[in-house]
Amino acid sequence: MDLLKKYIEVRNHSEEICKPLQTEDYVVQPIVDVSPPKWHIGHTTWFFETFILKPNMEKYEEFDPQYNYVFNSYYETVGVRVIRTDRGNLSRPTVEDIYKFRRHVDNAMNEFLQKPLTKELEELIELGLNHEQQHQELLATDIKYILGNNPLFPPYKFEVGKSQNNIQTKNNDFLKVKKGIYKIGYEGDDFCFDNELSRHEVLLQDFSIANNLVTNGEFMEFMDAGGYKNFNYWHAEGWDWVKTNNINSPLYWHFINGEWFNYTLQGLQKIALNKPLCHISFYEASAYASWKGMRLPTEFEWEIAAQQFEWGQRWEWTESAYLPYPGFSKAPGAIGEYNGKFMVNQQVLRGASEVTPEGHSRITYRNFFHPHLRWQYTGVRLAQ
Amino acid sequence: MDLLKKYIEVRNHSEEICKPLQTEDYVVQPIVDVSPPKWHIGHTTWFFETFILKPNMEKYEEFDPQYNYVFNSYYETVGVRVIRTDRGNLSRPTVEDIYKFRRHVDNAMNEFLQKPLTKELEELIELGLNHEQQHQELLATDIKYILGNNPLFPPYKFEVGKSQNNIQTKNNDFLKVKKGIYKIGYEGDDFCFDNELSRHEVLLQDFSIANNLVTNGEFMEFMDAGGYKNFNYWHAEGWDWVKTNNINSPLYWHFINGEWFNYTLQGLQKIALNKPLCHISFYEASAYASWKGMRLPTEFEWEIAAQQFEWGQRWEWTESAYLPYPGFSKAPGAIGEYNGKFMVNQQVLRGASEVTPEGHSRITYRNFFHPHLRWQYTGVRLAQ
Amino acid sequence: MDLLKKYIEVRNHSEEICKPLQTEDYVVQPIVDVSPPKWHIGHTTWFFETFILKPNMEKYEEFDPQYNYVFNSYYETVGVRVIRTDRGNLSRPTVEDIYKFRRHVDNAMNEFLQKPLTKELEELIELGLNHEQQHQELLATDIKYILGNNPLFPPYKFEVGKSQNNIQTKNNDFLKVKKGIYKIGYEGDDFCFDNELSRHEVLLQDFSIANNLVTNGEFMEFMDAGGYKNFNYWHAEGWDWVKTNNINSPLYWHFINGEWFNYTLQGLQKIALNKPLCHISFYEASAYASWKGMRLPTEFEWEIAAQQFEWGQRWEWTESAYLPYPGFSKAPGAIGEYNGKFMVNQQVLRGASEVTPEGHSRITYRNFFHPHLRWQYTGVRLAQ
Amino acid sequence: MDLLKKYIEVRNHSEEICKPLQTEDYVVQPIVDVSPPKWHIGHTTWFFETFILKPNMEKYEEFDPQYNYVFNSYYETVGVRVIRTDRGNLSRPTVEDIYKFRRHVDNAMNEFLQKPLTKELEELIELGLNHEQQHQELLATDIKYILGNNPLFPPYKFEVGKSQNNIQTKNNDFLKVKKGIYKIGYEGDDFCFDNELSRHEVLLQDFSIANNLVTNGEFMEFMDAGGYKNFNYWHAEGWDWVKTNNINSPLYWHFINGEWFNYTLQGLQKIALNKPLCHISFYEASAYASWKGMRLPTEFEWEIAAQQFEWGQRWEWTESAYLPYPGFSKAPGAIGEYNGKFMVNQQVLRGASEVTPEGHSRITYRNFFHPHLRWQYTGVRLAQ
Repeated sequence: MDLLKKYIEVRNHSEEICKPLQTEDYVVQPIVDVSPPKWHIGHTTWFFETFILKPNMEKYEEFDPQYNYVFNSYYETVGVRVIRTDRGNLSRPTVEDIYKFRRHVDNAMNEFLQKPLTKELEELIELGLNHEQQHQELLATDIKYILGNNPLFPPYKFEVGKSQNNIQTKNNDFLKVKKGIYKIGYEGDDFCFDNELSRHEVLLQDFSIANNLVTNGEFMEFMDAGGYKNFNYWHAEGWDWVKTNNINSPLYWHFINGEWFNYTLQGLQKIALNKPLCHISFYEASAYASWKGMRLPTEFEWEIAAQQFEWGQRWEWTESAYLPYPGFSKAPGAIGEYNGKFMVNQQVLRGASEVTPEGHSRITYRNFFHPHLRWQYTGVRLAQ
Repeated sequence: MDLLKKYIEVRNHSEEICKPLQTEDYVVQPIVDVSPPKWHIGHTTWFFETFILKPNMEKYEEFDPQYNYVFNSYYETVGVRVIRTDRGNLSRPTVEDIYKFRRHVDNAMNEFLQKPLTKELEELIELGLNHEQQHQELLATDIKYILGNNPLFPPYKFEVGKSQNNIQTKNNDFLKVKKGIYKIGYEGDDFCFDNELSRHEVLLQDFSIANNLVTNGEFMEFMDAGGYKNFNYWHAEGWDWVKTNNINSPLYWHFINGEWFNYTLQGLQKIALNKPLCHISFYEASAYASWKGMRLPTEFEWEIAAQQFEWGQRWEWTESAYLPYPGFSKAPGAIGEYNGKFMVNQQVLRGASEVTPEGHSRITYRNFFHPHLRWQYTGVRLAQ
Repeated sequence: MDLLKKYIEVRNHSEEICKPLQTEDYVVQPIVDVSPPKWHIGHTTWFFETFILKPNMEKYEEFDPQYNYVFNSYYETVGVRVIRTDRGNLSRPTVEDIYKFRRHVDNAMNEFLQKPLTKELEELIELGLNHEQQHQELLATDIKYILGNNPLFPPYKFEVGKSQNNIQTKNNDFLKVKKGIYKIGYEGDDFCFDNELSRHEVLLQDFSIANNLVTNGEFMEFMDAGGYKNFNYWHAEGWDWVKTNNINSPLYWHFINGEWFNYTLQGLQKIALNKPLCHISFYEASAYASWKGMRLPTEFEWEIAAQQFEWGQRWEWTESAYLPYPGFSKAPGAIGEYNGKFMVNQQVLRGASEVTPEGHSRITYRNFFHPHLRWQYTGVRLAQ
Repeated sequence: MDLLKKYIEVRNHSEEICKPLQTEDYVVQPIVDVSPPKWHIGHTTWFFETFILKPNMEKYEEFDPQYNYVFNSYYETVGVRVIRTDRGNLSRPTVEDIYKFRRHVDNAMNEFLQKPLTKELEELIELGLNHEQQHQELLATDIKYILGNNPLFPPYKFEVGKSQNNIQTKNNDFLKVKKGIYKIGYEGDDFCFDNELSRHEVLLQDFSIANNLVTNGEFMEFMDAGGYKNFNYWHAEGWDWVKTNNINSPLYWHFINGEWFNYTLQGLQKIALNKPLCHISFYEASAYASWKGMRLPTEFEWEIAAQQFEWGQRWEWTESAYLPYPGFSKAPGAIGEYNGKFMVNQQVLRGASEVTPEGHSRITYRNFFHPHLRWQYTGVRLAQ
């Protein structure tokens, strides 16, 4: 019954995120990394139909067998996937059809969750809910991209996630952490992803880490100092990225009549200097740190030090590549494709963001993206 | 007043074509050559606002100054155009907004057309209506592409344009035309495009031309004879196109359980053998003719011979490149960009198709597309 | 015996063109349209081995069966061709090997040509020599590209072809030609390409055409008048080409310390204002004509008027697309692939250039290239 | 004087590697990762001219100021670099010119090294020699690629580096290493790269690691078991790489008449089953390990365990991404660009290969390449 309550809450939250959307906003895919909102709404539903209802609920009737083809993402085990770049070309199923699909699955799940479940099934449903929460954050970032790249700059007018006042108080101290053996990875009985295991010891050297995230104002100093024009601060691939794409500011920033604005969920607004910097790539994060004569923390340093500072406003780029922990082993079957297959060419981000759904952040959580991506709520915390 | 009546009729017809659409169908752009239906609806409206109302109607209030940026197509004179590939990324303005824009402009035009107009203005409005009719054909072909490339193959359920029974009667005779000097190009007082002028004499050699279009069944013989696998029948660029894109049948054809189907506006259907072949590239048209030991007609041969055969079911590829007629001169200003700028790298098609709007076909009409394109209702008529 | 003499002369000339080259210059392929000189030297030899010696000389021993794979160009009938972009990756066979191949084939041809030949064979050898002359012009233009795109700008130091003083005398008159029926295409008993046939009548309207080619100085006026920045003068595809490639001058032009230079076979030199303009695309030729309020001649106008003006310094872009003449039919077999397969998407150039080998120009000669290409010695003659 | 002797030895070795080459082999660049041998010969020379002679030898005369433009690689501090893809387009300077450049610099260095040097200069020369040794390995692998991708498969006929008999003896035991704190990184007074520092402690878990490298025969079992067709063994990006490039065997393998051959420096030869597997990507290494139910070692595990097994035949892919060690700091100026700027998106390889120059391998050496690259002598050692 707790699980049913959680199921309803999580499923409702996805729909709430979409409430301010027009039908048309559900459909488009401006870049390959962004999925159309209607795809998210269908895909998270497909998860429960495919992994819970079809194999486990006797009299369950599949809503439409062709939906597997449309809403599968990367689960190669389950069937042929739609090429990711094609998602934005599909006008059908319509938004209404997809919400019908959602109702159909939710009704069945509602019934299914009345009865006692095996531990294994409970865990799988828990995974499905965490999976949906991940897509809630993606919904928020994808919607921002869809609206923020429209020449009309339509506001979204809705507070996603925590509506905290995320102004940085000026406390630019650095915490010091002593060399030693520390425990890393999830411990406990609640849900965690497979990539947070196994919990293991690491040896850290002495380091210090900033109490605060880098602010917009601080990053502007880097821009004013010609940071985007001096290759010395950049990785070779980062520098190529800057030149190829003519990057000269964070994503969503626009220089209008001598002033910097950025697109926010409330529309175009002047840059707030003391808010934490957002929407930067790993390359920019790293170049900024290099310009300051510092570096980014490793994910292990972050996990240990984070017990002593506030976090949760930005996904913080770390210097760590996304790799398996000692003893990592992927689950058998389709679920096992979840994390391990991405463990190359990506950087770990730690923390959470203002659009991370409540209850979906942990100090051991390992988020990961390619180093050039910026549409997530990414930020920088310095270390040395 | 006649012009007002025509205005209303033409404008209504565009909306009728879109009636069977879901909102989502208006938004997507699966390939760069296809525009989202909502863009067509907005762009044809933008034409009247930009070229008629804003410069000529005193108290006209522009609906939204930003729409110029969104609905301009290739008219470089008028302002910065949206990159064509971006059209499918724009969820706003919504379909509803665009219909409001349409109402706004139609109301103004309705008032404007009550009063006497200069001849120049009348001609410009006539051009606007012919422009909209061109977009009606594109609407029909773009909608077919959007639905026909969706894995659910949703039917459109609506007869666009002429609902004639386009079965070929078996009369495979060839008309003979004698060598001589013939007149080519538009003559008369009604509307024609600038590319149909000036009317001029050409010298044609003896030729003969088929009474009938090539049928699906006849083209299947080419396929069965290995036509797609023998470079001898193909232009070098056509052969590259076949191999690069793994082409082995006309567009919309699918080989399912040992039989050929094609997507039609009524959904997937078995190939009708005696219907005229449709949705082929110039390369395929030319390879078929080569396999038959014949050739395609030139546009001049076509224009002279067409007085003696029935045409209007398919846009018929000709061997003629799209070039200016002697004495061609483009109109000054934005309107002058209409045709001349495309006179390179394209082939002329003559005739009309089952989705050409009524009243929009002429024996002198010169349609033109790049040789690899297939989403128009294109067909083949042999000559020798 | 005349044929033997011609064979020796033509074959020698190819080698003379290459004399100033370093071994390294034979190897590279800076762009896909340019072939490495060693490939030209091998390919023209392969032609005689494949089409003359192997099928017709009884005791001929093939030099190396693998060379067919390397030196075949577009002759799909004969075997698998090397992908064109790969030519510049092949260090073997070496230049020395290829000259050995050349000696081997020349020796055999020398012997073969001592004996009486069928008319058919004579024609095929004639074709092979004309083919080699075409490659001589390509050798000259490809060598210029290879050296002219090297940052050291090494001079070639050798006069290819006619060393005429090609300064334009100031006689900017326009010839007038009257409307009438004219004969077009090759007539005579000497060699011509299949695309020059059949000779046929065309009807021309009144037109006038410039006595002289456009000069560098005249084109600079277009540049100074902002010609590269005003889309009104350009085809839509030409304008895209200008913007995508940041074109602002003819090929090989460099703006250095406030003055225009261009790379010539003698190295970097100041622009000679009264020499005929060279190395421009069809798009530039057409835009220049449009800026002057004129147009390019058709290939038919050119062929008729050229009897009255001097030509031969530049390949002159015409407004005509490359299409078959009435009654054109391609030869059977591999030779038939020669011309017909390219009759789409290319523009006809008429005349000849300063690097056209002597004896390889005719008033009926039809050269053809894609409209964006500039590495040939192309120029402009205005018509109206 | 020792340094002079070492200078001469190292410089000679580069030239010996190139002895079997034809001039043409020096010029080509079949893929972007491979540099033309003449570029390596020039670039390693440019290093000494730029960093040693020009700033430090009073009367030194620069050989040719334009060479900086041609032979600079990625050193953005020193000047504009030639775009890497352009190297294969440059026929000049010729091979002879470059060897003259080499003589010129060697003569000056010979003189320069007679006199006492500061420690700083000695270190810089030492770096230059190690830099040249790195390029010696690249010369060997690039030459193999140039010859091995030529359809004539010319043999190189020369033993590069160690001519050891690298047959694996059957000892497939796994070494066990106990959990503990181990020291990682270079310690000593000889040369090491900045990325091997600082030496620091890491905590390792229990692990075991194979005594032997995976052999060709063992990898064939993976191929026979459908390893290239089962996405379960692959990273998501690896799977895309397999499908996009139709990968079904290691690089240089060819399936001819029912048997597997591979290109070796002696030409095409049958696969030797008990030799260590070579020329595979990280993706293939990782997929193989996954199929065996094991994994690749981390670079730290490797460094500790390697004290107990033989290594040096293959560069061994590790599971570690290329990241800075604690306390890593890059040197000031151009030299500082050496390593740090590549610390993203690459995997560490440990060991050395049969073409690594003698004296250029260390147990702490960190090689790094992108995960899809195969033209180095890469291999696999399993861990669990």
